[in-house]
Amino acid sequence: MASLGRSIDELMQALRCLPGVGPKSAQRMTFHLLDKQRDGAQRLLDALAQALDKVQPCQRCQILSEQTLCERCSDPQRRQDQLCIVEMPSDVIAIEQATHYQGQFFVLSGHLSPLDGIGPEALGIPKLLTWLDSGQLEEVILATNPTVEGEATAHYISELVRARQIKVTRLAHGIPLGGELEYVDSGTLSHAFSGRESI
Amino acid sequence: MASLGRSIDELMQALRCLPGVGPKSAQRMTFHLLDKQRDGAQRLLDALAQALDKVQPCQRCQILSEQTLCERCSDPQRRQDQLCIVEMPSDVIAIEQATHYQGQFFVLSGHLSPLDGIGPEALGIPKLLTWLDSGQLEEVILATNPTVEGEATAHYISELVRARQIKVTRLAHGIPLGGELEYVDSGTLSHAFSGRESI
Repeated sequence: MASLGRSIDELMQALRCLPGVGPKSAQRMTFHLLDKQRDGAQRLLDALAQALDKVQPCQRCQILSEQTLCERCSDPQRRQDQLCIVEMPSDVIAIEQATHYQGQFFVLSGHLSPLDGIGPEALGIPKLLTWLDSGQLEEVILATNPTVEGEATAHYISELVRARQIKVTRLAHGIPLGGELEYVDSGTLSHAFSGRESI
Repeated sequence: MASLGRSIDELMQALRCLPGVGPKSAQRMTFHLLDKQRDGAQRLLDALAQALDKVQPCQRCQILSEQTLCERCSDPQRRQDQLCIVEMPSDVIAIEQATHYQGQFFVLSGHLSPLDGIGPEALGIPKLLTWLDSGQLEEVILATNPTVEGEATAHYISELVRARQIKVTRLAHGIPLGGELEYVDSGTLSHAFSGRESI
């Protein structure tokens, strides 16, 4: 009889869809929500219901938004000739916090992964192609993750962009700021060495 | 403009009431729920609504339950003369999985912590006293956590139990099974040494 009833078991199971949450954390979260944090649980319930109801991908750039067209896409002040392609909505926030980039974004919501059945359609590439064909763009910045899948996705998109005579750039690779050289992985170090810049 | 709209920000904030979830994890969970796992998010919403509606503390032992009186308290097969006092509902499950204990439980839902304003009333001690006074109990097993607060709570309760001429026991302290002696902390080791048993 190591169970506390169906609603509690179901909540534990449901919490496991969160990234990084295993059985132990789910159990801890469940007791915390139902026992100590009932106000917090009610707030989470309301926020989740509201977000699920209101938030959907922007029709143009696929970022999560409360409007059909997100704030960035409907802002006429932003540059229309630059497009930065990222994997996740959080990458948009990271880039905005770190840079002064004022162009457009396109969120793939993932990377090409044929084994998981994620092809160009799932990433919204057809929509991207329409955008590339619109003639507005002068530069496409590829800012996918520096992983094997991210690089493959960037390569795939770069071919499509280049075929339309649009300039395509990629975030610079090299050693990150801070830290020590001996702890930089060999792939990065080799990349930074062969791509050394004159000063 | 490093935000994605009010509903998304609110969901991020609300997720932070979960134990062990900071701003970065909350952001990751939010995008995961709204982007990749909408089915999972809907399931979480339903499970949370259901649990908040149905689950409350058992009137007798304070464990979370869907009934006014939980399964354990309403089971006449269980021993009525033993009472095991624990801090959290998860401790009940841990004890049932590890032992053959078939007596009653009482869940404090925390420990005494005067600085946080958690006194005997918040832990349900008045309800426990009524139980102790009922004359049914022959042994009270204190199974609070082996922390300073847990020990203090156990000490406080043991005085109340002893005043009623009921036998009171405490989980044995000592070195845990498995692992190596040199990695056992010195408090535990000193406790195990002075409490050595003849074989």
